[in-house]
Amino acid sequence: MKYKRSERLVDMTYYLLNHPHQIVSLSCFSERYGSAKSSISEDLAIVKQSFEMQGTGFLKTIAGASGGVTYIPTMSKGEASKLLTNLISQLSQAERLLPGGYLYMTDVLGRPQYVNAIGRMIATVYASNGVDAVMTMETKGIPLAYAVATQFNVPVVVVRRISKVTEGSTVSINYVSGSSKRIQTMVLPRRSLIPGSKVLIVDDFMKAGGTMKGMINLCNEFETEVTGIAVFVETKEEKPKLINNYQSLLRLSITEQETALKIENGTIYKNFTH
Amino acid sequence: MKYKRSERLVDMTYYLLNHPHQIVSLSCFSERYGSAKSSISEDLAIVKQSFEMQGTGFLKTIAGASGGVTYIPTMSKGEASKLLTNLISQLSQAERLLPGGYLYMTDVLGRPQYVNAIGRMIATVYASNGVDAVMTMETKGIPLAYAVATQFNVPVVVVRRISKVTEGSTVSINYVSGSSKRIQTMVLPRRSLIPGSKVLIVDDFMKAGGTMKGMINLCNEFETEVTGIAVFVETKEEKPKLINNYQSLLRLSITEQETALKIENGTIYKNFTH
Repeated sequence: MKYKRSERLVDMTYYLLNHPHQIVSLSCFSERYGSAKSSISEDLAIVKQSFEMQGTGFLKTIAGASGGVTYIPTMSKGEASKLLTNLISQLSQAERLLPGGYLYMTDVLGRPQYVNAIGRMIATVYASNGVDAVMTMETKGIPLAYAVATQFNVPVVVVRRISKVTEGSTVSINYVSGSSKRIQTMVLPRRSLIPGSKVLIVDDFMKAGGTMKGMINLCNEFETEVTGIAVFVETKEEKPKLINNYQSLLRLSITEQETALKIENGTIYKNFTH
Repeated sequence: MKYKRSERLVDMTYYLLNHPHQIVSLSCFSERYGSAKSSISEDLAIVKQSFEMQGTGFLKTIAGASGGVTYIPTMSKGEASKLLTNLISQLSQAERLLPGGYLYMTDVLGRPQYVNAIGRMIATVYASNGVDAVMTMETKGIPLAYAVATQFNVPVVVVRRISKVTEGSTVSINYVSGSSKRIQTMVLPRRSLIPGSKVLIVDDFMKAGGTMKGMINLCNEFETEVTGIAVFVETKEEKPKLINNYQSLLRLSITEQETALKIENGTIYKNFTH
């Protein structure tokens, strides 16, 4: 089957979107379309140009024998701004307040178009950090973690509160929940993480950061490096936080009587410069 | 900013992949690229042709004033066959056997490229059913449910074993676990499902089908219609199953002493005809 340039461009875009952060060799495309490598190079220049025009990512070219291209998905400042504004307006209704200073977000985090966009936003900020795995705490953080991991094409490891029979032997640590001050246990299957790998921690909600701190300790226990920490919503009141160097998409403040709430941009937006 | 055809093709592909099962009007593209609708129509014919050549989906054209195109993502028979073969070889090691007739799948289901491909496979089979929401049981089924829901661009509803404070008021039902015969409770927040909507139920593992049956009852409780049931791995031994009309990707059999296992194609593959 012989492909025209126009058909190659469509399929190449499809292929690259499905293989982010992976080196794709010129030979791979050359064989896929029965075309000369010189034509493929020209095609890729067009793809690169179009991605950069829309701010949907960039193509990194790797020269040499094992050379090729790597697609790095990103989000433009314009899209990031629109997404955050949209999320703030969705989440700012007073009836979302739940007992204990929590926020009802199940509907928003149940919609893949939001979750995937949030994942792309977080991945943009950590695009050049090197990420080998994404870690989260069950259960609300799981969809966000997969959305981020999809962008990096790396595995997700889910930390659990109790050990499940389906997971084999596990490593467990105790941690102190920052807001409730209770001692809790978190576990991770022994075979989930390779020592030396770089871990990006992702979660949906953070008060003082006790759970996050527990996950950092767990990463140390597995001799891995925490390469980043991102949370969807953090609370403004609980201070000081038990952790540093994290990014939040949104920041929630609640009045003392828990009758009104305010949601504003967190720290992540300032990372988007163009 | 003026786009050339080649740049439009790349961005159009990107846009359609991110908006599956949604009507995109010709005007939307026409404004996005500052191009005449006639040019956009020609572009879309090329995109359609390329998608169909690779079996990565098809474009449905909707005529009239509110007309446009809808991208229906699909998987080709060739890709489905490769995916199932790959999964069978990954999961067929005897050391994956866990006490109680379970299978260690955490590593495979932790990899987004598998999860997203499984999601695309399930979505292909139910592409023309009409799906308004995807339902799953916490926690292992969650990534699969999001992968399927992403393809349909519909929300995910996660059924839980206990009511969480962050979810507001809930509806709960009791069900009998098919294999352990224990009475258990499942709950769903009251605001999660709209009466009359079509629900696709997705889960990672099924023995007799007690949990699935519980989810079907829950759908009835919410006055919704079950439009499909798909499971990643079902066991071959537990019979009869408590439910009908489901699709499984893989089927697991275990020897009586639980020392060896066999994994083979489930029911889903026969749905792929080209």
